[in-house]
Amino acid sequence: MSNPTLNPTQPHRVVVIGGGFGGLYAAKAFAKSKNVDVTVIDKRNFHLFQPLLYQVATGTLSPADISSPLRSILCQQQNARVLMKEVVDIDASEQVVITSESMIPYDTLIVATGVSHHYFGNDQWKTAAPGLKTVEDALEIRRKIFMAFEAAEKEADLEKRKALLTFVIVGAGPTGVELAGAIADLAYNTLKQDFRTINTRETRVLLLEGLDRVLPPFTSDLSEKARAALTRRGVTVATSTRVTHIEAHAVTIQQGETTETIPAQTILWAAGVKASSMGSVLERRAEATLDRVGRVIVEPDLSLTNYPNIFVIGDLAHFNHHDGTPLPGVAPVAMQEGEYVAQLVQARLQHRATPNFIYRNVGSLAVIGQNDAVVDLGFVRFSGFIAWFVWIVAHIYYLIEFDNKLVVMVQWAWNYFTRKRGARLITGKSIEVLETPSVSELDKSPVKV
Amino acid sequence: MSNPTLNPTQPHRVVVIGGGFGGLYAAKAFAKSKNVDVTVIDKRNFHLFQPLLYQVATGTLSPADISSPLRSILCQQQNARVLMKEVVDIDASEQVVITSESMIPYDTLIVATGVSHHYFGNDQWKTAAPGLKTVEDALEIRRKIFMAFEAAEKEADLEKRKALLTFVIVGAGPTGVELAGAIADLAYNTLKQDFRTINTRETRVLLLEGLDRVLPPFTSDLSEKARAALTRRGVTVATSTRVTHIEAHAVTIQQGETTETIPAQTILWAAGVKASSMGSVLERRAEATLDRVGRVIVEPDLSLTNYPNIFVIGDLAHFNHHDGTPLPGVAPVAMQEGEYVAQLVQARLQHRATPNFIYRNVGSLAVIGQNDAVVDLGFVRFSGFIAWFVWIVAHIYYLIEFDNKLVVMVQWAWNYFTRKRGARLITGKSIEVLETPSVSELDKSPVKV
Repeated sequence: MSNPTLNPTQPHRVVVIGGGFGGLYAAKAFAKSKNVDVTVIDKRNFHLFQPLLYQVATGTLSPADISSPLRSILCQQQNARVLMKEVVDIDASEQVVITSESMIPYDTLIVATGVSHHYFGNDQWKTAAPGLKTVEDALEIRRKIFMAFEAAEKEADLEKRKALLTFVIVGAGPTGVELAGAIADLAYNTLKQDFRTINTRETRVLLLEGLDRVLPPFTSDLSEKARAALTRRGVTVATSTRVTHIEAHAVTIQQGETTETIPAQTILWAAGVKASSMGSVLERRAEATLDRVGRVIVEPDLSLTNYPNIFVIGDLAHFNHHDGTPLPGVAPVAMQEGEYVAQLVQARLQHRATPNFIYRNVGSLAVIGQNDAVVDLGFVRFSGFIAWFVWIVAHIYYLIEFDNKLVVMVQWAWNYFTRKRGARLITGKSIEVLETPSVSELDKSPVKV
Repeated sequence: MSNPTLNPTQPHRVVVIGGGFGGLYAAKAFAKSKNVDVTVIDKRNFHLFQPLLYQVATGTLSPADISSPLRSILCQQQNARVLMKEVVDIDASEQVVITSESMIPYDTLIVATGVSHHYFGNDQWKTAAPGLKTVEDALEIRRKIFMAFEAAEKEADLEKRKALLTFVIVGAGPTGVELAGAIADLAYNTLKQDFRTINTRETRVLLLEGLDRVLPPFTSDLSEKARAALTRRGVTVATSTRVTHIEAHAVTIQQGETTETIPAQTILWAAGVKASSMGSVLERRAEATLDRVGRVIVEPDLSLTNYPNIFVIGDLAHFNHHDGTPLPGVAPVAMQEGEYVAQLVQARLQHRATPNFIYRNVGSLAVIGQNDAVVDLGFVRFSGFIAWFVWIVAHIYYLIEFDNKLVVMVQWAWNYFTRKRGARLITGKSIEVLETPSVSELDKSPVKV
């Protein structure tokens, strides 16, 4: 096909910022494009399979089991290169991405930098109630969870011991439900024979949710089933419950007119997300409009209104589907958006038109614990063992590298038959921390790597 | 059997300090002892399979693959308990172990706290040339190795790039040889397709040794074979080479009358060990005699001269075998010593005599790389593929938990057939580090967990 815009000595330069599901699937979708050069910029050297991060935080999997080096994934794709850098700015008129050390020119820019935690204006809660987005977050939460049991084993004071064995999870979306289910399973199954002083079955796992049901994105009957399953597993579910204050080892909640402060060694945040800082960079530099949590409102083809060669995909994008609500921040949306943009760019290079992006709903899944999940495929909804099995197959399938699939299967099989979790190591902080058993002191020790 | 010293209401209290090979095998050997209570004290919550730690440092395995929670290993042993504490002192006359928060009385004390790095009076080299003893050490070395390649990919200056791609390992004992072989394999195989600017085959791996051959504990013909295999794999081996100075990213060596300073981004220390601080505690508090590197010189039954109820085992013990040289600091010695002491204690409780400890030599192994190792079983010595296979079987066999065996087999098989290493994540430091490409700046950034 003759094409005047294609200059064989000057390939079309696509720059992708972010190697998550959106960015990676976009980059891979250019694999067979001649005359396209793809540069993936990420501050980390690996793609993280975030849907399984809670299993790192609760001691089932290792970080490497759910991570794949970006260079390894793209090493065979000759038109792709990886740069390990942090983007600090872009210049949309000059068409360059700016890092602290270099300028990277682009013809097409795909921004897929995702989201981070949102504390709804209470950023001071962050230390007391960490969230789960990175490998480091997961290892820190793992350390907190297992240190709480160790400290309880050494604590003579019964009130303090009760606080050490109280785990509060704020937010009953999929991550909150998964964390609560996994911690309950740890306490009531995995660890029940491990201690000599404490009875880990006295552990309290509290799941707090501001709305009136768990898993709000799901239908209300699935929410009910999830709530029943959580309760059966020992999780105390409190819906219509507002968190009004969090400090180190105490959370204050409001239910109707009643307020209560609950002493808890471990408080985890799974309540909200806000856009990564690239959202405001695009607002400042490319006239992007942001929504309430900083996500970029995109055109029906995922581009920016005045910059048709800049695309925003994945969790960072606010895309209005048929019904007016934005698409959820889940991996299938990001993957489809990435592939769509790659096709659109290739079509443009060949002066072909592309229809607007349409999300094909592949369903929603959330796991509650062993043998228990909820699945909504749109045309059919189910829960329990079959849902759990569907969840397992889907997650294994989408793990990128084959050794990850095998290792995760081995670990899950082992966990299934023995209820053991081999990855419950306490690592990363100095031993001074390990010597500090009192509730108030546990988080003040110096950090040593 | 009637035994006046056994009081059924007052079991004999055995305290084990350290959950490595020595301490753990001692504790487990009491599994069937009635009237014995075992307390294992460790500052970590897991047993570490140290012989495979270099595979964590070079991106093949994850920390959890070679670690087992101590509580999990001992959960079925009803007479054993685990305390996660750091021992700060002992009082041998009162028979108590002192931690920062409590006193733990013992009837028999088994000290198995191992060794740490020894910089021969140059402790200031520690930051520039880290050693490999803990999980944190391994993750820090992994970060250094993979960051060096990332920085080289971004470096335009050819001299600086050469320094970034130079890896120096000080000490050609088993750990040094294993690290050098694994880094060469990384550079020449695993990573060769991953980068677009650098050619990882230009990487230099230098293995420095003060003595006149590699693997000094082995016979000289095996040393020669190991050296030839390393050279074949691209490692530059320099024996009879003294390190006279180390600073950040430069090592000064002396060979005969010549001195030379080699710029190298990554310098790793595998040259020497010294006893952990429990050695000097025992010297001060229990009249123990220490050797040159602080190890405790023990009686033929592994006890202290004036304290027959205190035993020192594993790397911390200096035990003179037939020929006058101390037993080497390897896992089989520690395991046999641990089991011996447990038998001796049980025999004493029944007023039976026990012969002195004799080490049954099970052989020495060192791996050089895929398909290549050296094995000395005493009556037979061999190298190459068979030696490598023996090494694999032995290491899988001694991994404690079954899921670790499976996962390590999967990872090794994957690595064998693809030369890939899935665990090459750069984690643990703040992204500021990732943005700092220059040689001199790379290690000065603040630490963030």
